[in-house]
Amino acid sequence: MGPGPINVHPRVLRAMSVQLLGQFDPEFTGYMNEVMALYRGVFQTQNRWTFTIDGTSRAGIEAALVSTLQPGDDVVVVNAGRFGLLLAEIAERCDAKVTFVEASWGAVVDPQAVEDAVKRVKPRLVACVHGDTSTTMAQPLGEIGAICRAHGALMYVDATATLSGMDVPVDAWGADIVTAGLQKCLGGPSGSAPITISDQAAEHIFSRRHVEKGLAGTGGAAGAGRRIASNYFDLAMIMDYWSEKRLNHHTECAPMLFAARECARLVLEEGLPARFDRHAQAGAAMTAGLEAMGLSIYGDKAHKMTNVTGIWVPKGVDYDRVKARMRTDFEIEIGSAFGPLTGKIWRIGTMGVNARKHAVLQTLAAFEAVLRWEGFSAPAGAGVDAAAKVYG
Amino acid sequence: MGPGPINVHPRVLRAMSVQLLGQFDPEFTGYMNEVMALYRGVFQTQNRWTFTIDGTSRAGIEAALVSTLQPGDDVVVVNAGRFGLLLAEIAERCDAKVTFVEASWGAVVDPQAVEDAVKRVKPRLVACVHGDTSTTMAQPLGEIGAICRAHGALMYVDATATLSGMDVPVDAWGADIVTAGLQKCLGGPSGSAPITISDQAAEHIFSRRHVEKGLAGTGGAAGAGRRIASNYFDLAMIMDYWSEKRLNHHTECAPMLFAARECARLVLEEGLPARFDRHAQAGAAMTAGLEAMGLSIYGDKAHKMTNVTGIWVPKGVDYDRVKARMRTDFEIEIGSAFGPLTGKIWRIGTMGVNARKHAVLQTLAAFEAVLRWEGFSAPAGAGVDAAAKVYG
Repeated sequence: MGPGPINVHPRVLRAMSVQLLGQFDPEFTGYMNEVMALYRGVFQTQNRWTFTIDGTSRAGIEAALVSTLQPGDDVVVVNAGRFGLLLAEIAERCDAKVTFVEASWGAVVDPQAVEDAVKRVKPRLVACVHGDTSTTMAQPLGEIGAICRAHGALMYVDATATLSGMDVPVDAWGADIVTAGLQKCLGGPSGSAPITISDQAAEHIFSRRHVEKGLAGTGGAAGAGRRIASNYFDLAMIMDYWSEKRLNHHTECAPMLFAARECARLVLEEGLPARFDRHAQAGAAMTAGLEAMGLSIYGDKAHKMTNVTGIWVPKGVDYDRVKARMRTDFEIEIGSAFGPLTGKIWRIGTMGVNARKHAVLQTLAAFEAVLRWEGFSAPAGAGVDAAAKVYG
Repeated sequence: MGPGPINVHPRVLRAMSVQLLGQFDPEFTGYMNEVMALYRGVFQTQNRWTFTIDGTSRAGIEAALVSTLQPGDDVVVVNAGRFGLLLAEIAERCDAKVTFVEASWGAVVDPQAVEDAVKRVKPRLVACVHGDTSTTMAQPLGEIGAICRAHGALMYVDATATLSGMDVPVDAWGADIVTAGLQKCLGGPSGSAPITISDQAAEHIFSRRHVEKGLAGTGGAAGAGRRIASNYFDLAMIMDYWSEKRLNHHTECAPMLFAARECARLVLEEGLPARFDRHAQAGAAMTAGLEAMGLSIYGDKAHKMTNVTGIWVPKGVDYDRVKARMRTDFEIEIGSAFGPLTGKIWRIGTMGVNARKHAVLQTLAAFEAVLRWEGFSAPAGAGVDAAAKVYG
């Protein structure tokens, strides 16, 4: 019940134990094409360039930034938590110039402030985190796409913690590149990063295309732009690999491709609206339960993610021991916190298979017991009852 | 029966379907420590810093190079094939200055030429591929470590295609960083890259340590050196993650960790010498069988890898159709070739679970039939008989 990685859906676990195929076997490239189509559905996009990166969600972020940003480029980073800082950190390693538009941890950034910065800086890219699990806040992104288009910037969104759990309407937002990971609401393991890229962004990236010497004569034309600073994360090469050209790059990780495929199949079988509702209901039930126990919820409730909840540690309660007892006595993992919130809030996720009634109720019952052992007495049964009431 | 990826060992497939654990769960970090110990055995090293990178073998290469090389650094690349070119390509993206020491495809580089270049250039790093599957050649590396030590250079080896199939004695070589992948002789899927790093190389990398802003206060001291140009491949951060500090970085991909662990357990249960012999015998049997069929083997036989064999395409035989018929009629994949060898040689692997008698014999029997259908008549049964004779 942490903020991810979470338990993997049994069908996804099973998919990973299937024998692999050669990466250019037509049956396997057929699965790759299926994955592209499935994630168009998950991302609510028509983008041709929709596929997965062989690495964790952080690999997806780095691929997006290093393939887009050239040294000296300006980037506006919308930041209100650890993962906003991570975007800036990666952009700086691309030798881009970072301008922050910030809110304090537990709040979200005002879109007007983003517009002001974009007008002033005229960046190549505006980079945003949708749901920052470090603060449990979901940044409103509905206006940012139009701001970017009006000022000739590309829009990047890190949707690792929200994709398939909260609404991530890529085309409606007008986002150019959106990346995620499987280990949150998608209910898979980390290690594969779904990505979608608009034609506009792809055109920019292909302008930096470079074909490996060892493959000379087999690739497309080289672009006029500066070579991308990473080979592994060179999205121009990776798109050539996922295209009909099938130009050799890395060796696709078959078990993770199968996992990504099964995650997306499960999402689309359930349906996006039903899945968003399930996550919202689980988050509401968890929140109601925790409040009924007399605990305080962290952050601006108006912008709280549905799928992760921060809890202020009550006075006199041992932070680490509560976590340890949840794990050792109940086999339930809850999350600690980062940076300024270390030791101050716990984070409980309700994601993927854990966004279900029994998981919420079991966690609240266990939490009540563990807090009681630490000297914090909640009204007996109040948490479970309040959560059950949300489920009706 | 390609040059990798190959079929995955059934125990490794099973390991990947185990439910995952939180990345900081003591049981999970225990498995991480086990993986470190197991790969010390596989790499024949005492190096403390022995672990895995979450990505394919190419991710391991990039992590080694980008964490070691600073812009302007000199690197000597020992090159005689596609994967030597890849090392140079990645080094160039690190803005390092590449000096090649080269041999033509199908040959190996003379260590004396390496020494001459190292004396002249005084590089930060000498980068070598051990077994380059594009040419089927194994580069002799026994003298390179001493050359590097004598001239203050670090030695990097890409052992993707040979680790656990041919002798890779890291400490005896005096290699500073060696990386691999699971999808060749280790008998796993691609997607996890084992790496080992000497104390000397680790010290250099830690001099470039940088702690993420979002984790401020929880990490070690920042180094004086220039920040590493990648976050995902920043080995200083990744070592901090694998150390007792457990400093958060990426979210470890649990199924691939379990796969890497099971691959190493299988290797050490079999024993390295027995495993090397098994690969050598399978390669010798395959070679004998192909030659008995009247086919010509590609490259310098004195330096041929034991676990992959290149075959010149006989005149009048359709390159792609042979591959397609092997796959569609016999469900046996064989490899095509890269760059100057495209359309000229096929490559047949004998790696991992495929380095076994029945796999060699089945492949030769099928190959004889398919070549006959293409108008190339080998003496009936000669390939299978010659291979069986090698097995005695």
